[in-house]
Amino acid sequence: MLTVHHLECSQSERIVWLCEELGIPYNLKRYNRSPLFAPPEMKALTPMGGAPVITDSTFDPSHPLTMGESAAIVEYIIHKHGGGRLVLPPSHKNYSDYLYWFHQSNTNLQGAIFRAMLVGQLKLAPENPVQKAIDAKVKAVLDTLNGRLNQVTWLAGDEFTAADIMTVTSVTTMRLYYSIDLTGYKGILSWLQRVGKRPAYKSAMQKGDPGMVPCLGAAPPDLFPAWAAIVQ
Amino acid sequence: MLTVHHLECSQSERIVWLCEELGIPYNLKRYNRSPLFAPPEMKALTPMGGAPVITDSTFDPSHPLTMGESAAIVEYIIHKHGGGRLVLPPSHKNYSDYLYWFHQSNTNLQGAIFRAMLVGQLKLAPENPVQKAIDAKVKAVLDTLNGRLNQVTWLAGDEFTAADIMTVTSVTTMRLYYSIDLTGYKGILSWLQRVGKRPAYKSAMQKGDPGMVPCLGAAPPDLFPAWAAIVQ
Repeated sequence: MLTVHHLECSQSERIVWLCEELGIPYNLKRYNRSPLFAPPEMKALTPMGGAPVITDSTFDPSHPLTMGESAAIVEYIIHKHGGGRLVLPPSHKNYSDYLYWFHQSNTNLQGAIFRAMLVGQLKLAPENPVQKAIDAKVKAVLDTLNGRLNQVTWLAGDEFTAADIMTVTSVTTMRLYYSIDLTGYKGILSWLQRVGKRPAYKSAMQKGDPGMVPCLGAAPPDLFPAWAAIVQ
Repeated sequence: MLTVHHLECSQSERIVWLCEELGIPYNLKRYNRSPLFAPPEMKALTPMGGAPVITDSTFDPSHPLTMGESAAIVEYIIHKHGGGRLVLPPSHKNYSDYLYWFHQSNTNLQGAIFRAMLVGQLKLAPENPVQKAIDAKVKAVLDTLNGRLNQVTWLAGDEFTAADIMTVTSVTTMRLYYSIDLTGYKGILSWLQRVGKRPAYKSAMQKGDPGMVPCLGAAPPDLFPAWAAIVQ
């Protein structure tokens, strides 16, 4: 059986959502933050101690697999449990678009937000060169994402793919840790409205974070309380 | 024809190396830093303005492809030009290892180094909580990488794969921007010695950065001069 270890209000919602989109059987194990990061029993699962994590006894019950890293988990589940769905093959005309948007989710986009969160703790002046570089990078990645979503329905083109699953969390749940106002970002906002109507997304949010309202609108949500105590 | 746009002393060496490993035809276009980041003619190629970039007129000469993002480019070249080599398929016993190490190269490992470089500009005291968190994260990713390489020849197991190509740059050329002493990291160092003996790696380094000595040993190299002027 495949088990998805999900940390509340985190990027590991990607994996819950993926399983719901694929309609595959899985166990969901939820963890609350303690008080901000993963609790000890979740940290102990992998060397890097983060979320998401999966364990899988499907193929070798005597040696269950334990695995971290969102993008790796997404590919593993799609190809080992999901019949290769939600991926575009090399022969598809939008193959390069799929690859670009799938991979940039954790590098340019999530990377920019992680750096902004980290430096946010230092409360630098807006004119500090490091703060200015961070602000410019976040704006550049949002502008680029919005430009793409002004032209297409889903990030790879016409079809909903794993590239969307990887990317959504950066402009929804991650805003509990880094305030982004999406006013004026029409491409991103209309995409998030389409996401919010997907039965699998609704189901994943209800199962994974039953107390959380998905952050699908322009206004930034209140920061996660334990994080707000650090940066505000 | 496939063209690889390579910025000197940067992670785009991954793409030059990949093409040499695959033995595929490609044009190499080199760019010098100006003085630290990509020069304007390279920045203009993609919305995010970074390196690497490829252009490819092979499959649709009237609409050449332009693409950024290391991991996406690696997958594209392997599957469109390289016959799917250097990737482990879902049926392989080490598939999950391949996926994990391929993807974590740009998230945990390169992400930790990028954050360390950024905050390095602020010259925080060693006891600053943000600096301590950064130092701990860099140590954790190096320890985890070293632990893996104490057990296996290549990151995915017995076979050299794209996971190695993605990861090497973080503990070699990236040390021109963030000083890492690898003394005591025996697994990483013996892996780098194996890398340095590969004809394709040697060829890629000579073609991509003819003036640079690959940073394959324990001692950190001198910082890239334009970066040293900022952080030292």
